[in-house]
Amino acid sequence: MKAYRYEQNPLLTPLDVKPHHAGFEVIGAFNAGIATYGGEIFMLLRVAERPISPNPGIVLAPVYDPDKNGVELVEIRKDDTRYDFSDPRVIVDVTVGSGFAYLTSLSYIRIARSKDGRRFAVDDKPFVYPSQRLETFGIEDPRVTQIGDTYYVYFSAVSPVGIGESMVSTKDFVNVTHHGMIFGPDNKDVLIFPEKVNGKYYALHRPTVKSVGYPEIWIAESDNLLYWGNHKHLAGLRGDMWDSARIGGGAVPFRTEKGWLELYHGATKEHRYCMGALLLDLDDPSKVIARSGVPVLEPIADYEANGFFGGVVFSCGVIVEGDVVKMYYGAADTSMACAELSLQDILDGLVYL
Amino acid sequence: MKAYRYEQNPLLTPLDVKPHHAGFEVIGAFNAGIATYGGEIFMLLRVAERPISPNPGIVLAPVYDPDKNGVELVEIRKDDTRYDFSDPRVIVDVTVGSGFAYLTSLSYIRIARSKDGRRFAVDDKPFVYPSQRLETFGIEDPRVTQIGDTYYVYFSAVSPVGIGESMVSTKDFVNVTHHGMIFGPDNKDVLIFPEKVNGKYYALHRPTVKSVGYPEIWIAESDNLLYWGNHKHLAGLRGDMWDSARIGGGAVPFRTEKGWLELYHGATKEHRYCMGALLLDLDDPSKVIARSGVPVLEPIADYEANGFFGGVVFSCGVIVEGDVVKMYYGAADTSMACAELSLQDILDGLVYL
Repeated sequence: MKAYRYEQNPLLTPLDVKPHHAGFEVIGAFNAGIATYGGEIFMLLRVAERPISPNPGIVLAPVYDPDKNGVELVEIRKDDTRYDFSDPRVIVDVTVGSGFAYLTSLSYIRIARSKDGRRFAVDDKPFVYPSQRLETFGIEDPRVTQIGDTYYVYFSAVSPVGIGESMVSTKDFVNVTHHGMIFGPDNKDVLIFPEKVNGKYYALHRPTVKSVGYPEIWIAESDNLLYWGNHKHLAGLRGDMWDSARIGGGAVPFRTEKGWLELYHGATKEHRYCMGALLLDLDDPSKVIARSGVPVLEPIADYEANGFFGGVVFSCGVIVEGDVVKMYYGAADTSMACAELSLQDILDGLVYL
Repeated sequence: MKAYRYEQNPLLTPLDVKPHHAGFEVIGAFNAGIATYGGEIFMLLRVAERPISPNPGIVLAPVYDPDKNGVELVEIRKDDTRYDFSDPRVIVDVTVGSGFAYLTSLSYIRIARSKDGRRFAVDDKPFVYPSQRLETFGIEDPRVTQIGDTYYVYFSAVSPVGIGESMVSTKDFVNVTHHGMIFGPDNKDVLIFPEKVNGKYYALHRPTVKSVGYPEIWIAESDNLLYWGNHKHLAGLRGDMWDSARIGGGAVPFRTEKGWLELYHGATKEHRYCMGALLLDLDDPSKVIARSGVPVLEPIADYEANGFFGGVVFSCGVIVEGDVVKMYYGAADTSMACAELSLQDILDGLVYL
């Protein structure tokens, strides 16, 4: 599918962000939630900072301590055979059956502001920083849903007891109210619809299941945005396609004449992440009407193919103006970029079920 | 701890239950939710039925089909090296990283009735049977919370897309309303408190996490029993103890002068399941006050140590009368039994945090 990538891409890289923590380096400014506020476009960046180890034989794992409201560094020797360092994002305890023991970086949310959607200025300070016991390994991949004059910002909350989705809200991007964890673990990639449908709020979510099943997209309903239920399985993997190994919601769904359009990410088992589209029934978003046969965006530009974790395009938010879908996306778990897609092209590329 | 096991134990075994499906055998009548109704004690039994294979070289996996409202049998050859049959409960596809492909039996809920709590008569027909796409592998381990004149019955709903917790309600154990899945996958061992605390309903739940963490007990809140949020981690594993590998809620929590008492199950990595106690703050059940140092019940009787899955005591409900806690429990994933415990003994055995 035709995609117009901005000449300014990548729009932001780790070099554009000053570390918040002394002795850390910024390794990622990516997977930003998107909002418009006060005539500006806001990227709510996921900023990942990694402690710089003075000793090449030691890896430092950052852990937020809510009692001290500060970050502790856990020292792990690289020759400690209990640990596996092969995935640059995590430190795995090989004596445990599954999952990771530590992350190699701490993520939080920082705002970048722009008048034209292409040149962004990054705030000096974090916007939302870990503050809870369920956030000690950081907060990741924010999305923003505006309902009336309130912006709901929700993100993966990561800690040693699991990854769930927590939420804050703000009206002014200054004063923030924390609403706790709205989806318990193992869950991420939550997307709250921007309006009620037939009297209910809806959200997509992505359980990471262990007993049976695969990382696929579910939908839930709510009457207050805080408590969620009536969980239903929405969309699954597709064998041998670009979304054969894992899928999850991407951008906040938006209304079209044909249905709710959700731009989601799908990956292969080789961890190549593309973006595709799901079309959901306008009156009942738990019904899938159509789905992209081919991706709407693939990681082919240099800044998408190469980086901290290469071969990834991962959108958390779009701005829609008529036929133009400005899709902001994280590239290679490193930087932010934007591509404009034609809404008509996306709709024409759908395969109806 | 002293436990008085009924002389009639096991109270019910698979031999007491006629199969609902032609050509099936009952292999389990266990893990029953407990209710009192019309002067009787009800066990809401989990009945597990297994198709009898006419060919020893073929395993039959039962799958409920919601479109046909019937059970299909999937034939799997025992010499098919893609599958592992070593766990008698499940059939594992070894080409997939984790989880099972099929269950070897189909579970549903059937009522057993008693005047004296010791001699039970089993209904001829199922009480709650799979009826939804999220229940095609069966429904398991029901619990019952009575609030006013309504009985809320909730259970693990198992299907190829995951295990979550679904709920029905009834006022008369005849007419049943289905409320859908109240906790999305991977989740089980939900326990809804029998009254609001400070204006909120509370429930324990047990996510099965994959990315990071362990099978531990969480707590959530609600204002309508259908939608749940503000998830918090409540209680974790304890190294080298009887609850070192997995824990989950057991019986419906009940109010004592000292706090909410939750009788939960804990297991070792060798899958030995015991029952223990958690004491939660009366005004804020997300606070753990105390926890059993030693189990309140261990699988030592013959019918607990031996069976379809031996070494298991697993309670889903109790009846409390003064100091007497009548703990009904599944034994060895096969039968039902009851032991009377002293409430004072349980409280005296708690270790305060």
